[in-house]
Amino acid sequence: MCGIFGIGGHDDAANLTYLGLYSLQHRGQESAGIATADDEGRFAVKVGMGHVADIFDGEVLRRLPGRRAIGHTRYSTAGASALMNAQPIAVRTSMGTLAVVHNGHLTNAGELRRELERSGSIFQTTSDTEVVLHLMARNPRRDVVESLMVALEQVEGAFSLLLLGEEVLVAARDRHGFRPLLLGDLDGTPCFASESGAFDLLGARIVREVELGEVIALRNGAGAIESHRLCGSTRPTRCIFEHVYFARPDSLLFGESVAEVRRRMGAQLAREQPAAADLVVPVLDSGLLAGLGFSRESGLPLEFGLIRNHYVGRTFIEPKQTIRNFGVKVKLNPVRGVIAGRRVVLVDDSIVRGTTSRKIVQMVREAGAREVHLRISSPPTRWPCYYGMDTPRRTDLIAARCELEEIRQFIGADSLGYLSLEGLLGVVDSPAESFCTACWSGDYRVAPTGGDPAQAPLFPLADDER
Amino acid sequence: MCGIFGIGGHDDAANLTYLGLYSLQHRGQESAGIATADDEGRFAVKVGMGHVADIFDGEVLRRLPGRRAIGHTRYSTAGASALMNAQPIAVRTSMGTLAVVHNGHLTNAGELRRELERSGSIFQTTSDTEVVLHLMARNPRRDVVESLMVALEQVEGAFSLLLLGEEVLVAARDRHGFRPLLLGDLDGTPCFASESGAFDLLGARIVREVELGEVIALRNGAGAIESHRLCGSTRPTRCIFEHVYFARPDSLLFGESVAEVRRRMGAQLAREQPAAADLVVPVLDSGLLAGLGFSRESGLPLEFGLIRNHYVGRTFIEPKQTIRNFGVKVKLNPVRGVIAGRRVVLVDDSIVRGTTSRKIVQMVREAGAREVHLRISSPPTRWPCYYGMDTPRRTDLIAARCELEEIRQFIGADSLGYLSLEGLLGVVDSPAESFCTACWSGDYRVAPTGGDPAQAPLFPLADDER
Amino acid sequence: MCGIFGIGGHDDAANLTYLGLYSLQHRGQESAGIATADDEGRFAVKVGMGHVADIFDGEVLRRLPGRRAIGHTRYSTAGASALMNAQPIAVRTSMGTLAVVHNGHLTNAGELRRELERSGSIFQTTSDTEVVLHLMARNPRRDVVESLMVALEQVEGAFSLLLLGEEVLVAARDRHGFRPLLLGDLDGTPCFASESGAFDLLGARIVREVELGEVIALRNGAGAIESHRLCGSTRPTRCIFEHVYFARPDSLLFGESVAEVRRRMGAQLAREQPAAADLVVPVLDSGLLAGLGFSRESGLPLEFGLIRNHYVGRTFIEPKQTIRNFGVKVKLNPVRGVIAGRRVVLVDDSIVRGTTSRKIVQMVREAGAREVHLRISSPPTRWPCYYGMDTPRRTDLIAARCELEEIRQFIGADSLGYLSLEGLLGVVDSPAESFCTACWSGDYRVAPTGGDPAQAPLFPLADDER
Amino acid sequence: MCGIFGIGGHDDAANLTYLGLYSLQHRGQESAGIATADDEGRFAVKVGMGHVADIFDGEVLRRLPGRRAIGHTRYSTAGASALMNAQPIAVRTSMGTLAVVHNGHLTNAGELRRELERSGSIFQTTSDTEVVLHLMARNPRRDVVESLMVALEQVEGAFSLLLLGEEVLVAARDRHGFRPLLLGDLDGTPCFASESGAFDLLGARIVREVELGEVIALRNGAGAIESHRLCGSTRPTRCIFEHVYFARPDSLLFGESVAEVRRRMGAQLAREQPAAADLVVPVLDSGLLAGLGFSRESGLPLEFGLIRNHYVGRTFIEPKQTIRNFGVKVKLNPVRGVIAGRRVVLVDDSIVRGTTSRKIVQMVREAGAREVHLRISSPPTRWPCYYGMDTPRRTDLIAARCELEEIRQFIGADSLGYLSLEGLLGVVDSPAESFCTACWSGDYRVAPTGGDPAQAPLFPLADDER
Repeated sequence: MCGIFGIGGHDDAANLTYLGLYSLQHRGQESAGIATADDEGRFAVKVGMGHVADIFDGEVLRRLPGRRAIGHTRYSTAGASALMNAQPIAVRTSMGTLAVVHNGHLTNAGELRRELERSGSIFQTTSDTEVVLHLMARNPRRDVVESLMVALEQVEGAFSLLLLGEEVLVAARDRHGFRPLLLGDLDGTPCFASESGAFDLLGARIVREVELGEVIALRNGAGAIESHRLCGSTRPTRCIFEHVYFARPDSLLFGESVAEVRRRMGAQLAREQPAAADLVVPVLDSGLLAGLGFSRESGLPLEFGLIRNHYVGRTFIEPKQTIRNFGVKVKLNPVRGVIAGRRVVLVDDSIVRGTTSRKIVQMVREAGAREVHLRISSPPTRWPCYYGMDTPRRTDLIAARCELEEIRQFIGADSLGYLSLEGLLGVVDSPAESFCTACWSGDYRVAPTGGDPAQAPLFPLADDER
Repeated sequence: MCGIFGIGGHDDAANLTYLGLYSLQHRGQESAGIATADDEGRFAVKVGMGHVADIFDGEVLRRLPGRRAIGHTRYSTAGASALMNAQPIAVRTSMGTLAVVHNGHLTNAGELRRELERSGSIFQTTSDTEVVLHLMARNPRRDVVESLMVALEQVEGAFSLLLLGEEVLVAARDRHGFRPLLLGDLDGTPCFASESGAFDLLGARIVREVELGEVIALRNGAGAIESHRLCGSTRPTRCIFEHVYFARPDSLLFGESVAEVRRRMGAQLAREQPAAADLVVPVLDSGLLAGLGFSRESGLPLEFGLIRNHYVGRTFIEPKQTIRNFGVKVKLNPVRGVIAGRRVVLVDDSIVRGTTSRKIVQMVREAGAREVHLRISSPPTRWPCYYGMDTPRRTDLIAARCELEEIRQFIGADSLGYLSLEGLLGVVDSPAESFCTACWSGDYRVAPTGGDPAQAPLFPLADDER
Repeated sequence: MCGIFGIGGHDDAANLTYLGLYSLQHRGQESAGIATADDEGRFAVKVGMGHVADIFDGEVLRRLPGRRAIGHTRYSTAGASALMNAQPIAVRTSMGTLAVVHNGHLTNAGELRRELERSGSIFQTTSDTEVVLHLMARNPRRDVVESLMVALEQVEGAFSLLLLGEEVLVAARDRHGFRPLLLGDLDGTPCFASESGAFDLLGARIVREVELGEVIALRNGAGAIESHRLCGSTRPTRCIFEHVYFARPDSLLFGESVAEVRRRMGAQLAREQPAAADLVVPVLDSGLLAGLGFSRESGLPLEFGLIRNHYVGRTFIEPKQTIRNFGVKVKLNPVRGVIAGRRVVLVDDSIVRGTTSRKIVQMVREAGAREVHLRISSPPTRWPCYYGMDTPRRTDLIAARCELEEIRQFIGADSLGYLSLEGLLGVVDSPAESFCTACWSGDYRVAPTGGDPAQAPLFPLADDER
Repeated sequence: MCGIFGIGGHDDAANLTYLGLYSLQHRGQESAGIATADDEGRFAVKVGMGHVADIFDGEVLRRLPGRRAIGHTRYSTAGASALMNAQPIAVRTSMGTLAVVHNGHLTNAGELRRELERSGSIFQTTSDTEVVLHLMARNPRRDVVESLMVALEQVEGAFSLLLLGEEVLVAARDRHGFRPLLLGDLDGTPCFASESGAFDLLGARIVREVELGEVIALRNGAGAIESHRLCGSTRPTRCIFEHVYFARPDSLLFGESVAEVRRRMGAQLAREQPAAADLVVPVLDSGLLAGLGFSRESGLPLEFGLIRNHYVGRTFIEPKQTIRNFGVKVKLNPVRGVIAGRRVVLVDDSIVRGTTSRKIVQMVREAGAREVHLRISSPPTRWPCYYGMDTPRRTDLIAARCELEEIRQFIGADSLGYLSLEGLLGVVDSPAESFCTACWSGDYRVAPTGGDPAQAPLFPLADDER
């Protein structure tokens, strides 16, 4: 997962992009970067490891001049996680300098890389983004926008991307719309962001989603945007897991309020999987809104029986003696007074490997809960994502290996209930078939081909400061 | 405000102290430090600026050997904020090496400093802790514990402190008990912490509060603790603002659950200051539990209409163009879908200067709220704290200058209601007179004397990396 | 200028490469990097900005496993100086992973880049090294060595390079031998270095120079090296400026001792440009050995009238008031007792812009010298270098614009004398025609074509931490 | 050893002090610091670990306002080496704020500390400087200068110090003059420095030495300096080892040129300890000028047979396989062409433990020297220094344990010769009895009393970033 932001024609472009990335930090804190271009087509690029606030300061932003900027914030990547793969990637081609940021995952990237390598391309990263740039360079056109469209018509899978050329800023989204991308307006200046939270911070307004298969070009000097369409029919396949977990609750996603959708998931979960209990405890922060919905629907009171430590995420040192449930305890602490002697419904968004849920249930029991009923506001996660979500291999997904009762026993809950796929799809306004449900159903509308280059990292070990 | 932790006789003393400080980070992130002593009375000390996780790593902890340790985490300090004032302070005296950590504020520190200076003492910090060490050095005793007690009988005000001597670890608390301090037990090893959350993480159990005026000594080799009493009568004057705002909600404080007390404050607030509205929105995170209590009591639904950005706190850069309500927006974002067209009760814990509340109200209005009713779960803050809370000067407290209606107008709310002092004191089980209420009532049971040395910083400018 | 080092088959490959680079630090301190490969063809790469000792530590070296390694240390580069251009560059091609380090400058790089771009290549750096990798990828062969040779036969100019493939380590040198490259032997393990100083530190012995146009391959598992030849006739054109200034004085360069050659230059200078003076003062450190030679030949005593500050090179802050000759004074300080009242011969290796020499002469005069006679142990520098030396544009070379007498007046010396080109060529054992003398004579045996891509930096501003 | 600098009344005080410290870096690179005071008596202090150029930058210097400044650069200290002991030390006393920097070592510091501790002082560092501040605070006077003089009359040993008070800058030097201290003049502004090199860089002129037992006060607003005298008779006992090794060769020390004195030492050494050899090789950098003197006197040619690596001093990593003479090789490399087959006289300034000399001799032999004759330009070092030089314990001094022939055998030289004490004293113009020769003769004119507090470090382990 990643977050992207771009702005096309503002004196404070780098700084606004920094703020945009700041509000997209929940989409990735491994690395971040910004590229800017001035009106003469001169580029400046800065990427770094860590939080956006650790990489950029006033001095660095001053060294990113120009009125157009694109930025990227990146989630931890399997394999060759490293500065090498940090974005934007900027390269020199026969069409001049190009810089790209990308959210998503191309399902035919491995195949395309091998073809490109066979015909003489060299790869310096393992990212899909570099594939797009090679495809553009192999099909140069007078107009960079046309070259990008030719390239994008060769790739399959999920992409929401921003490209900065010497005379143009382009936004593009795949024909399925797996990943979100919005067009905004900041006092007349067009801007783009993965989520509406970025616009809220800047005081920009949402214009609309970048449409499926749409390519929006903003040429230097032009007041208006240009809209193009990629060949082929569109088929909406939006990632509903964005609603379940990934997006900020204050975002408008695919036209709906994330907070509202999550609350409805909790309510539907209460209808499908009721529990004879005394109170509802959300697993913070991701279970908060579903917990609220479950409480409202079930009539069971919402209580904050688990408190989150705000400083989690920094390097951590375990003591010599092993502390029980250490990994979870540094993040969450049970409130004994709320839990002790009560029958507790825990509400969380999903179960991946099952080990964290097991520790939380154990911790809640040790805080004195009489019964623990775990309720999950999405269906069992049984299949890996090929469209940009960072999921483990299938064999590591507990629901791919175990039946419900086995999962319940492993986790140690008195009862376990998942939201049904139908129930989940019923709470969103858009039609069910407009969403990707592959991680639950295995229904991959765009099949991956040619293996996954990210599984064979280029330089596995020491390149983390490149 | 500060957090302190100590442990007396464990092979993993430094590491456990690190974890204890980690769970006390909400009490201060400006600087942190740990001192350890081994059985031969050799000390090691490490202090640094920033979060505890930025200062300590495995390598640093290995260089802090010994089975006894004390640690400190410090809030931002007015004036001479700096590594110079980071704790523990360790010094050499005729009684050997002594290291101290301290939470609180001495009301006669300025007077004592001047006396000590007049008789030839030199001060290298502006902290009260150094005053205590000077008083000890001026009254050396065979027994370090006795010397500490002689010193503490000369000071007035608030202190919860831990002292590490060559052969002893001592915990002491003033006769009013302004600041919390707990005795815990980790599998037979005594430990001390400002809040119970530190024990929860380590799997230690709470034994009891360190009593008012109590001095607990743990001598090397001794299995049991020794309890002493400072001269003079005790008069419980616990800081109830710890319950309102400062402590972790999962802590047991002064014998009561913070989460539960906060919920009751919200409920009482709903009774005292009802509002004709559609929903209750807590100002996260501090207003969460009072908001829940308000919702429960009023019957108005709790909704999360403000979402908190998790990455706040890092250095921040404002763009050239001024963004409306920038300072608040990087922390909180309104959820338009929840708020728009509704009559909203905002619940927060307190108003200090009023500027932040004003921005929040404005932001909620801009997100479409039809009416905004601000409810505060504590009385108007009218007086500065002299017992260790970091409050601005009186003239900066809006409630010290303005009447309720003026405050409402400044903040721009449709209505404004504070919890009454009686109402607040009614929700805690302990008797009303056992709490300090000075910040609301001006009733200072221990009057400050001799001015405040922290107002005249020693080296105001460039010592921040000392 | 750069320094390169490689070793082919040693358990401690990364660490030895680190030490090799350490002893080549005089050839560049802007950035450094090491790539290693293990017997399964897995690569690890680490590059960074600054001194080799700042980039690598025990932990980083442990993350560079494998028995084969190549390393690079880089001089400050005009234009796009940055981590982006740091070496080794490692890429993925149809022949597997390849990593390259390179010392020199290709005279047709600009032309080749444009051709490659036109046919669809993308460039991520401005370095010549990337051109070589593209040429290889465009002409893949079963055997990486063959592919490298095909690529090298297309490039012109100066290169001494090391390439690490999955199954081979290759060293190559251009047919003119502009830049040095030696084959060494460390207890049976072949190794390569720009200068013999690297071998001295490790206790390796010099086997021989890599010959002109030679390509040496060391295949995994093979005990012996394989020697190949690039097509085309060789024509020795070694950079004699390495002898004048660049190489370490303790190195054996092109078969001769640098220290000895420099001393002979000084002696010849004394014969050609005698001075009626009292003493000889070398401009440390570069003028030391020529100064010794001048003193020995002239009979004038050698005196250390200028002392060098050892800590130069770190960031420097000038005071508000301008100190006379500030830039030179932080490096050199005159010894008044040695200089005052005397007629001084200053011996330096070369004059580029003339501004530094002017300050030194002025400073020596202010220290009381009665007369200052400047003697330069090389001819007037009149032409830029196209073979890897970092020289300014022609218009910035004082000797390209001014006659001898004008230079003397600008510098303010009582007399000025350069070593003649014939004199210089006479002191080395190799035939005069085997050296490149272009920077003095303008006789470029390999003419640059197609402009210099380094003049059009890719990302001019903020990429310095990439 | 340390270097100190101060300036009394200049708009650019902090910056000039930074430059002064820069030129005194050879006197210590462990830590450095600057304190400034403005005309209202407000202080600012900055200390840090490492080179002065790593601690200070433009931003830090801007935060050190005020027209008066003192600075310090510190050599590695035995025991509690750490930021804790970095100077200036600044404290608050009844006379206001005081900041001190100090070069030297008090021989009764241990005794004074114990007395002060007994009467109630607390010590936060192990430095002698803190003792002086305590003595002042215990004897406050209206006039800070008087208080300083009362304190200094109680201490014994070596001190050259600078004190900054709210209204005065004071320089003081002990009655023996162990350590140098000069008064300079920068365009009318008085300044002080350990060595004249600091004045040279700034363009200040030397006025004179601060005299033995002199206390110079510069009061705010006063145009002229005030000179006072400490009670008791003066007895010049200057450290002649400053001439042998420690001072910059370009400094004027105790009225004589260091470079000239070193050259004479070499000449006298040649007379006393001639050698039948082919050439003279100085051990760089310390042996350079003695080597020149030896060469001139003996008629043997000076040759640079050992070359120094300029980047030494940074963290270093030894490879797994042990490289012969590794520790010396990273600093010095022999030039085989100069040495091979020749009879070499190595000239160095002193032998401490003998291990380094042994490695150098071995390395020179391995480079092919036929004979190696080691000549030392000072007498055998047999006694530790109690006056501020950092020497090992007596048992670690090879000349304290072994006879000349045993040392020669250990070192492996063909012959070994030291300069005689008479010979050494004969080359300086000042009378022999005006110098301290204790490290050679054991003649301690001021005997240490009461043990050495630096041997009992306060916090031995982890305080290095305090």
